[in-house]
Amino acid sequence: MQYYQNGFKPGDPTDFRATADSAATQLLVDLPEAVDVLIVGCGPAGLVLAAQLAAFPEISTRIVERKPGPLMMGQADGISARSTEIFQSFGFADRVLKEAHFLEAITFWQHAAEKPDQIVRTSKKADGRNVFSEFPHVVLNQARVHHFLLDVMQKSRSQLSPDYCRNLIGLEHQKTPRDARSGDCYPTRVSLARTDPDHEGQTEVVAAQYVVGCDGARSTVRQLLNLEMRGDSANKAWGVMDLLLVTDFPDIRNKSIIQSANEGNLLIIPREGGHLVRFYVEMDKLKGSERASNRNITVEQLISAAGRILHPYTIDVKEVVWWSVYEIGQRLCDCFANISPQDSDSGPPNVFIVGDACHTHSPKAGQGMNVSMHDSFNLGWKLASVIRGHSSPEILHSYAAERRAVAEELLAFDRELATMFSVQEDSSLEQGDRLEATRLQQYMVKHDGYVSGTLTRYPTSQIVAEPAHQALASGFEVGKRFHSSPVVRLADARPIHLGHVLEADGRWRIVAFSNREDPTGDSTGIRRLAEFLHNAAESPVKRYTPAGSDIDAVIELLVVFQQGYRDINMQELPAFLSPSKGVYGLRDYNKVFCPDVDKGNDIFDERDVNRGKGCIVVVRPDQHVANILPFDGFADLAAFFDRFMIMQD
Amino acid sequence: MQYYQNGFKPGDPTDFRATADSAATQLLVDLPEAVDVLIVGCGPAGLVLAAQLAAFPEISTRIVERKPGPLMMGQADGISARSTEIFQSFGFADRVLKEAHFLEAITFWQHAAEKPDQIVRTSKKADGRNVFSEFPHVVLNQARVHHFLLDVMQKSRSQLSPDYCRNLIGLEHQKTPRDARSGDCYPTRVSLARTDPDHEGQTEVVAAQYVVGCDGARSTVRQLLNLEMRGDSANKAWGVMDLLLVTDFPDIRNKSIIQSANEGNLLIIPREGGHLVRFYVEMDKLKGSERASNRNITVEQLISAAGRILHPYTIDVKEVVWWSVYEIGQRLCDCFANISPQDSDSGPPNVFIVGDACHTHSPKAGQGMNVSMHDSFNLGWKLASVIRGHSSPEILHSYAAERRAVAEELLAFDRELATMFSVQEDSSLEQGDRLEATRLQQYMVKHDGYVSGTLTRYPTSQIVAEPAHQALASGFEVGKRFHSSPVVRLADARPIHLGHVLEADGRWRIVAFSNREDPTGDSTGIRRLAEFLHNAAESPVKRYTPAGSDIDAVIELLVVFQQGYRDINMQELPAFLSPSKGVYGLRDYNKVFCPDVDKGNDIFDERDVNRGKGCIVVVRPDQHVANILPFDGFADLAAFFDRFMIMQD
Repeated sequence: MQYYQNGFKPGDPTDFRATADSAATQLLVDLPEAVDVLIVGCGPAGLVLAAQLAAFPEISTRIVERKPGPLMMGQADGISARSTEIFQSFGFADRVLKEAHFLEAITFWQHAAEKPDQIVRTSKKADGRNVFSEFPHVVLNQARVHHFLLDVMQKSRSQLSPDYCRNLIGLEHQKTPRDARSGDCYPTRVSLARTDPDHEGQTEVVAAQYVVGCDGARSTVRQLLNLEMRGDSANKAWGVMDLLLVTDFPDIRNKSIIQSANEGNLLIIPREGGHLVRFYVEMDKLKGSERASNRNITVEQLISAAGRILHPYTIDVKEVVWWSVYEIGQRLCDCFANISPQDSDSGPPNVFIVGDACHTHSPKAGQGMNVSMHDSFNLGWKLASVIRGHSSPEILHSYAAERRAVAEELLAFDRELATMFSVQEDSSLEQGDRLEATRLQQYMVKHDGYVSGTLTRYPTSQIVAEPAHQALASGFEVGKRFHSSPVVRLADARPIHLGHVLEADGRWRIVAFSNREDPTGDSTGIRRLAEFLHNAAESPVKRYTPAGSDIDAVIELLVVFQQGYRDINMQELPAFLSPSKGVYGLRDYNKVFCPDVDKGNDIFDERDVNRGKGCIVVVRPDQHVANILPFDGFADLAAFFDRFMIMQD
Repeated sequence: MQYYQNGFKPGDPTDFRATADSAATQLLVDLPEAVDVLIVGCGPAGLVLAAQLAAFPEISTRIVERKPGPLMMGQADGISARSTEIFQSFGFADRVLKEAHFLEAITFWQHAAEKPDQIVRTSKKADGRNVFSEFPHVVLNQARVHHFLLDVMQKSRSQLSPDYCRNLIGLEHQKTPRDARSGDCYPTRVSLARTDPDHEGQTEVVAAQYVVGCDGARSTVRQLLNLEMRGDSANKAWGVMDLLLVTDFPDIRNKSIIQSANEGNLLIIPREGGHLVRFYVEMDKLKGSERASNRNITVEQLISAAGRILHPYTIDVKEVVWWSVYEIGQRLCDCFANISPQDSDSGPPNVFIVGDACHTHSPKAGQGMNVSMHDSFNLGWKLASVIRGHSSPEILHSYAAERRAVAEELLAFDRELATMFSVQEDSSLEQGDRLEATRLQQYMVKHDGYVSGTLTRYPTSQIVAEPAHQALASGFEVGKRFHSSPVVRLADARPIHLGHVLEADGRWRIVAFSNREDPTGDSTGIRRLAEFLHNAAESPVKRYTPAGSDIDAVIELLVVFQQGYRDINMQELPAFLSPSKGVYGLRDYNKVFCPDVDKGNDIFDERDVNRGKGCIVVVRPDQHVANILPFDGFADLAAFFDRFMIMQD
């Protein structure tokens, strides 16, 4: 899609109506007296959490925001492959990919050896980040991501919408009488000052079972919890601009890193619609008077600096869509919740901070929006599972344990990258040597996987088993996200991505990779597994599925056979593999898969699954692999779920 | 996506709000006194035409419909590859593919040789229709296609919505004074009876420049034009049902053709959402009393017949979503407009009939909705071009000429297919022989391409040149639709489908495939072509682009080079290849492409383009190839457009 040719316009680029996406129509209603979860802040972290919780209408969720309506432009734009996988699980990856700009190539530019006042391209290559996932690395205005998440929330069974014009002013813990309905209590009282003209001066008090601060780098929730950010103070200032411009710079539609001899560095990120482009301008090299104080910097100064760096190419800026100056160091909060994992004797936490509220870093690695969303995607299913009475509240400690390690890693990466960006390369190198040799370039290539967001590995815990049987499927690493691969659905021969069956619906999955045997026999492994899950007293499906729910409501069995789709008759498989569900008892045919042999995609090869033995891969609701077990490891399978799940009637 | 598990629900399956897609909120406003185009009927034909015309806010279009609101369920469901290509050009193919069921495999069942009361599968194979296009053959409720088209209309610059509750009652031709605004006149007066409670008894009269009857098999427009349908009377009755059911039939999620020994024939089309299924039941074999009159047939009788055909498998129907009985012969109208192409001395036509209004046939080939949409996609750009003053009104004769031939071909196909379906196979054949040999199966495989809708070839005419230079690119056949192929966009290295650049925006395209030479030189072929189009007095771009419009507003140049994207610098190409456009003069980088050598997709090989000579492919606004010329065939290029276009100031 090509758009913004005649200027930037917020909202759906395919919608030409003047009134589309107007923030003015937001409904302002009073908050209820008590909620299960109160989310503070409508950034990417808050909205991912809200979208996740909205899937469960039995959980009362509200999300409050200081601003009067949705974000319309600016801020983050990088969307990692892992984020798009998560969007897929919410059902809107297609919408992101349709609008986004794809970063297919990356170019590096430096000053010419002979003419230090001119830049020359040293390298143009395919972006190496596009091999870690079925999804590419793309860029899209953060406001559009918000819009898609808001759409998921609004169309959900909970019909959740943000409550705008609310300023958090107080957070008190106090034990209240237990609520008769759920046996839970609402121990935290949140005070909110209303800021819209009709309610100005009014304060609302909401009792909440859980409070999640997604309120950014200056988080009020964090301050009210008396948690402190530690780390480097601002160590680097950059200017960032979203521009519509005319230029003769040849790589204006490619991600380009430009290191000039004397004018500083520039990072160019082409953006959605074919015209918009983002410039990151290093501010150290701004002329003295320009740099006097970052706060007095004008966008004209940033444009002028970018022009000097790009010499001999020129830019003619037609519209500044958004711009900002940032000076952010790498800072991290000791604890991501009101009770730290080390202090687990004090009971489970019930107030959390997420995203920028607990870690800040520079935007250069394109991780800002992503890591924040991954934080709350980690927390969301846990909160839902605990509130719905499926899991022990102790699992809530794993949020801080898992995500703080990710944040530490991110800060180390960002610190190193920021340094790399600013170090001048040795200009005495000959052109030929420099072509492939710049350290920044090498560093970035080395970390393509990290930046894709797909390599995060959660350590062994209550909800991540020791990888004792990792060798049975080395392509599904315990602790990492389930790496999707193409398969064919047996029932209708449709090629699909197996990972896309793992929707963000709070369910655990047991993905069973069968061994070579004909699965339609009478005493096959798959029949024994189905029999165990369906009937055994120790079966986690039996133990942890509430009475009256569909058989797959809490734990879903997915099966992948080695035979092609023409070689297996659906009806000869155990009925448990296409269970009867819903009010009519219709059979669910979305659970049995085969390798896509026609296209040459064999998931057993691609993920190195032991063909002779097969295996069981246990996948968490956030798609991280929790356990790998032998195909007949029924006792271990039961024991794993027994660690944290709550027996149902 | 999996949905309808707890029963069918009209509207967006991702929207869980109760009020979604309500027909009750339709606004009823008065029609204007005069319009450029009045479309009668909100079926697929009418909506495609409306969506096309809505792209041009300078054209006043209205679409009226007898019913009180949008279709909510039932009717057609087959979507051919060509239709999805057209949806792509409107920007919503992704939405169709996300919701649709993919017909990946097809199975054939017959009665067992030994047990004639039981059916056995004789064949299960990949659906052969998925090789003619980048898009597959899918099925989706017609109501959803309507919804997407309505969405295009509503979000367009024209903000077009249907006017419901209007019954066409009169159509008079009378010359009226010329309209000062456009120099056009509104020669047809249309009378409409309003049927909503607030306006019942009122008649509106609208003067229209053009009237298009998309009002179905019982078309009032056709009757008011005194045009008659000719052809076979009803020759075959079938019952059709959309069901939610439980069955042990193994291929319930695959397209299945079942020919029983004594109980008749059944066609099963699995549908969107993983549960819904359509049954077509042949009615000849219904028991005597059931068949007494088709009008008295009950759905229980159809279900019972389907159950008998499927024996020994059983069905347990849980919900009948929609059902109907149809008895339709192959009928065709002599003329598709008020003035036939043979009568061109009488001037151009200004009243047209489209889709079922001019041709009817059985739904078994899955062509119903498709051919109707292709009819109006053929007509839409021509009307727009004439009304906007770009083309001579004479081109309007080509609608009937081109589409009546398609309809004739369709009726012949449908007649033969209907016969095939009902003929009993010779049951004395051994099982092995029958496996691959049934005539129906052979017939269907042979006609996969036809059914995909991609093989339609328009004959030589004012707007389709003689294929004198076809050998330069035998994969782009003159008269057929431009067959897309993957390329890489030079500016940002993004892999895209070249055909997807050809949006439904009324523009002609000149797609120039360059020869092997380095395109960045001073006197290259591409430079000469750009120079000709940009500056020559005979250039069709110069002659036919209105002053003040973007240079590519009427005719767009697209260029495909043979070099990879790393081998060409955008800035060394003629500026005409990335022209300045819009209020800011931003450069359009969406016009230059390279083979996708990294993925091994070379469009020159795939479409058999002459590498030594290159060529020019002229593509109509409806994506049909109008001409193929040598790369330097400037005079012929100019002469082709001179045949039908109108010189601009």
